[in-house]
Amino acid sequence: MLKLFHTPGTCALASLIALEEAGAGYEKVRVNFKTDDQKKPEFLAVNPKGRVPALVTDQGVLTETPAILTFICQEFPDAGLAPIGDAFAFAQVQAFNSYLCSTVHVAHAHRMRGYRWVDEANTDAIKAMRQKVPEVVSACFELIESDMLQGPWVMGESYTICDPYLFTLARWMEGDGADPDRFPKVIDHRTRVGERAAVKRALAEEQ
Amino acid sequence: MLKLFHTPGTCALASLIALEEAGAGYEKVRVNFKTDDQKKPEFLAVNPKGRVPALVTDQGVLTETPAILTFICQEFPDAGLAPIGDAFAFAQVQAFNSYLCSTVHVAHAHRMRGYRWVDEANTDAIKAMRQKVPEVVSACFELIESDMLQGPWVMGESYTICDPYLFTLARWMEGDGADPDRFPKVIDHRTRVGERAAVKRALAEEQ
Repeated sequence: MLKLFHTPGTCALASLIALEEAGAGYEKVRVNFKTDDQKKPEFLAVNPKGRVPALVTDQGVLTETPAILTFICQEFPDAGLAPIGDAFAFAQVQAFNSYLCSTVHVAHAHRMRGYRWVDEANTDAIKAMRQKVPEVVSACFELIESDMLQGPWVMGESYTICDPYLFTLARWMEGDGADPDRFPKVIDHRTRVGERAAVKRALAEEQ
Repeated sequence: MLKLFHTPGTCALASLIALEEAGAGYEKVRVNFKTDDQKKPEFLAVNPKGRVPALVTDQGVLTETPAILTFICQEFPDAGLAPIGDAFAFAQVQAFNSYLCSTVHVAHAHRMRGYRWVDEANTDAIKAMRQKVPEVVSACFELIESDMLQGPWVMGESYTICDPYLFTLARWMEGDGADPDRFPKVIDHRTRVGERAAVKRALAEEQ
């Protein structure tokens, strides 16, 4: 049985949605950031990075959202969550998700987790990072809007593992100070994903 | 014919190595950062992100190192560069490469490209980021050393698309102020990868 370690409000939602979309059997374990559970030995034994999501499988633990999503689409091929067998199309899926993890999520993280990259005591630098977040996050969504999101789903006619991941990160847009009116395609996509039964189940499960 | 847009000294080296390992036919185009070629319309038409690497294929353009590496390992399966067909093992490869792109490369980028996340005119904040780079990059390599690099290759007995990517980022360690003596496994791996014929060819091609 798969077991997903997750925390509400984090990117772990993307993995939760993908598990629901795949019809996978899984348990979930909530990692409470408020009590710093992610830094406790029990969780570090699962994921030494001290981050969510982490997916425990019969063969071992997987971390990193793009990797967990890749596992789910390949382990449950009948769900059709990626163009498996088409090297180019599959790589396009990975390119989109790599952009989300390495650029969009990182841009967002400078708002609340600036201490990862400057000393926490340097409140001026922390503030300087936070101030630029609206601009940096907006630039990311501008690129997604104009060049990456094909519509109706990220990869066009097929719903893939890109969709729950974009949905998850697009939910942070307003909090990051990016103006949703500038990104009608992204918001339209977010609404469309949110209407899926599996996504509604995942959102209920998340809480 | 594949065409790789690359710049010496960047993470594009990982894709160059993988193409050499795969025995792929390819052309390469050098993007000169010194003359800001990555911001010029000709290159933005290839990759609107204005970054390298970008791999032009018959089906379209791929960006993001983990995605280009995924394409190469699947397009040239005989090269055996990934455990294709094993959902868990393949996802482990993706997890490693996701960590490199979203955490290690990002940690490194705060040394020279802090302007991505704070206003360029804020030299104090830029400096604060740069000062923390040795600590942040060292923490990344500590985790790789202790928990991720199986040896002799990243994934154990098989050389995969994780190896050229780690090799590429580990070459930046000294410049980032991380002490190589603290990471003997990573350095041993870097030496071992550097001895491969394909890697020597790629390093020659890069210049």
